[in-house]
Amino acid sequence: MQELRVGVLGFGVVGRGVVELLLTQGALLQQRTGVRLRLVRIATRTPSRNGDLALGEVELTDDLQRVVAAEDIDVVVEVIGGLEPARSLLEQALRSGKHVVTANKALLAMHGADLVPLAVANRCELMFEAAVAGAIPIIKVLRESLAANRIDQLYGILNGTCNYILTEMRERGSSFADVLRDAQAKGFAEADPSFDVDGIDAAHKLVLLAAIAFGSYPDFSQVHIEGIRHVSDVDIQWATEMGYRIKLLGIAKQDAEGVELRVQPTLVPVSSMVASVEGVYNAVFVRGHAAGTTMYHGRGAGERPTASAVVADLVEIARNWRVGCVGRVAAFSCLSENLRAFPVRATDEWRGEYYLRLAVADRPGVLAEVTRVLAEHQISLDAIHQKGRSAVAAVPLIMVTHATTERQIRLALREIEGLDAVQETPRFIRIEPSVV
Amino acid sequence: MQELRVGVLGFGVVGRGVVELLLTQGALLQQRTGVRLRLVRIATRTPSRNGDLALGEVELTDDLQRVVAAEDIDVVVEVIGGLEPARSLLEQALRSGKHVVTANKALLAMHGADLVPLAVANRCELMFEAAVAGAIPIIKVLRESLAANRIDQLYGILNGTCNYILTEMRERGSSFADVLRDAQAKGFAEADPSFDVDGIDAAHKLVLLAAIAFGSYPDFSQVHIEGIRHVSDVDIQWATEMGYRIKLLGIAKQDAEGVELRVQPTLVPVSSMVASVEGVYNAVFVRGHAAGTTMYHGRGAGERPTASAVVADLVEIARNWRVGCVGRVAAFSCLSENLRAFPVRATDEWRGEYYLRLAVADRPGVLAEVTRVLAEHQISLDAIHQKGRSAVAAVPLIMVTHATTERQIRLALREIEGLDAVQETPRFIRIEPSVV
Repeated sequence: MQELRVGVLGFGVVGRGVVELLLTQGALLQQRTGVRLRLVRIATRTPSRNGDLALGEVELTDDLQRVVAAEDIDVVVEVIGGLEPARSLLEQALRSGKHVVTANKALLAMHGADLVPLAVANRCELMFEAAVAGAIPIIKVLRESLAANRIDQLYGILNGTCNYILTEMRERGSSFADVLRDAQAKGFAEADPSFDVDGIDAAHKLVLLAAIAFGSYPDFSQVHIEGIRHVSDVDIQWATEMGYRIKLLGIAKQDAEGVELRVQPTLVPVSSMVASVEGVYNAVFVRGHAAGTTMYHGRGAGERPTASAVVADLVEIARNWRVGCVGRVAAFSCLSENLRAFPVRATDEWRGEYYLRLAVADRPGVLAEVTRVLAEHQISLDAIHQKGRSAVAAVPLIMVTHATTERQIRLALREIEGLDAVQETPRFIRIEPSVV
Repeated sequence: MQELRVGVLGFGVVGRGVVELLLTQGALLQQRTGVRLRLVRIATRTPSRNGDLALGEVELTDDLQRVVAAEDIDVVVEVIGGLEPARSLLEQALRSGKHVVTANKALLAMHGADLVPLAVANRCELMFEAAVAGAIPIIKVLRESLAANRIDQLYGILNGTCNYILTEMRERGSSFADVLRDAQAKGFAEADPSFDVDGIDAAHKLVLLAAIAFGSYPDFSQVHIEGIRHVSDVDIQWATEMGYRIKLLGIAKQDAEGVELRVQPTLVPVSSMVASVEGVYNAVFVRGHAAGTTMYHGRGAGERPTASAVVADLVEIARNWRVGCVGRVAAFSCLSENLRAFPVRATDEWRGEYYLRLAVADRPGVLAEVTRVLAEHQISLDAIHQKGRSAVAAVPLIMVTHATTERQIRLALREIEGLDAVQETPRFIRIEPSVV
């Protein structure tokens, strides 16, 4: 029986899940791969035993070099997260000929263009299924199962924390701040939630998916990122009333003129499948020219779902190892020499429908002023709502536009913001009426 | 540039889709694989040009041997379907060292236990992603992406024709016979619909999924199969009224005592995801001990979706070819020597909730007789409905039971059928309340 010797960097939530799977599912993994996946060593800066796992002969050390530079390790699993020291450690592992499995979306999104060629040059695998959407095998699906397709768009719910917050805001009618506080108390959101709620985590994932789908290296600077801090309970109520849900979507589109990569709160029809993805779940929708739209749904985070994806990558390496091959599938689907950089479509040129929310003084003539500005920018309305009366405070004025360009919207809202009767910065949320 | 020479057997709907993808997506496939997938020859008994495809240098022949036995073919794509001559042709192809990609679910379900060892012995790939659920990459997901999981159950909508018929029956309030006739006219159902509507096609697919999930050769005789002919519009109306949808599900469950494999009309809660899979779509739900439940949704049939899966297999073979490996992943996930036959749980021992429909005379005392029989078999009721009045005709009596065994249900219904007031064979449909 061939043996693949595994070292794990990091012993947090995901590390613990990986270790547990390797220790408890050894027989099953061996039946499926023909290889013994032997966990040799766990390196962590704070080597506490991490719960009740019986580690047996597995070594626990605080010397990270004992994993990335040790002679007795064939594969390094990196579940530390963050850019450094993860990046230096993985470069070192690859240079010393070790295969790498990582769940580190930030690292791949920022430095994939350096790490992937380094792995290829050293004839090592560099796998990262766990970096996107937890247990959902979207990386493999895009690289392999949809390889016969030109992919023109993909979109999905890529951050469970945001989806949980938006779901709770709607179900409880609560504000963003209140739900965030509760989510933090329950462990569904970090003490510093900005990576999640500002859309950065989803953007890391989106750029990896887009790179594979379109055949390029990930370029994080290309992603337009908006988080959910500005989504108010008023928006959610109005969206519901008009037959929409608000979701934080990652959207990647490609056509002859270039790509659009955006992470943004989005109004989607309540009858769409993406609208029904609730709580901490993730889902990804991919449209291929031959397959049509396929959809993938599951747990996007958590100890065991993420560990399931990490160990799937270890299984892949073990299977390659057994038959003596390496580098079978390129990290971003196309071979490095065939990757292209794509022109990014300027936000101004985006075209779509928009939800607008103004806070206006409740007096005659306001509506006429606002609609005059919109008309001057060739923006026509599908719906307009005003509710509530107040002699002193501002009242919300909600509008839904027909298709227009983002340039027109931004110009119009700038002018509207200057109107006397408009008392807060106008907000807009893009609508995607054609999601499935 | 390495070249992989492809021969196609069969030039029907799927064959045409495969040929079109190979002819139009050559550059993309080359960028993704580093290999030229060259379509050399199409063999079909009726070599008409099949539409407006410009075949160029591709040879079209009626001599099937010119694909399975020719020196200038490396991979055979079989899209003829059916058991013979497909089986003999593929055996011949494997014996002469050719890789095989097939969409033939019946062949794999019936003879996979012979074909797979033959492929292994000849160091050939035998791939069949397109055999189950069209564009949905469920075979690869089960074999590879969920390889770290003990899978205890999977279920899904595996036949688009049945799902279309059930969807139409509900939406239009029409009978099975009427909707079937329309579906045949539209090309959504075959002239002889029995493979679809009697559940056989879904059972072929289910047994392949179960073999991969549980690590055994497919044994078609283990599948309990019920089709949708007996589902009446009355059942669909009552299911809707009680908060259910009726779906033809393929269900595979495994526990310490054995496996259950069944294809059956099933009541599922209307709020479940599986209930929302409508029309010709397919979806598969897999529950793994680490990943939790993941779900896969898309087009389960049709020219391009099926061709997408066939060409994904060709891409896999090309990628293996480029790095010089074969037999990387076992057909049924576990290596042949690790496959096991599982005991099948007898239908009598199945446990669950049941929907019952009787046709009874509308007179006093009937309800008392029926409920007495149920009580004698320890069957308790969750709901009972009777509607409509008639002095002459039978009226429907609808009941939903609490959990019981199938033995009790069958014994009770046999006795109930003997009651004077009961005027048709009682029908039951199993309920799966815990689907997601």
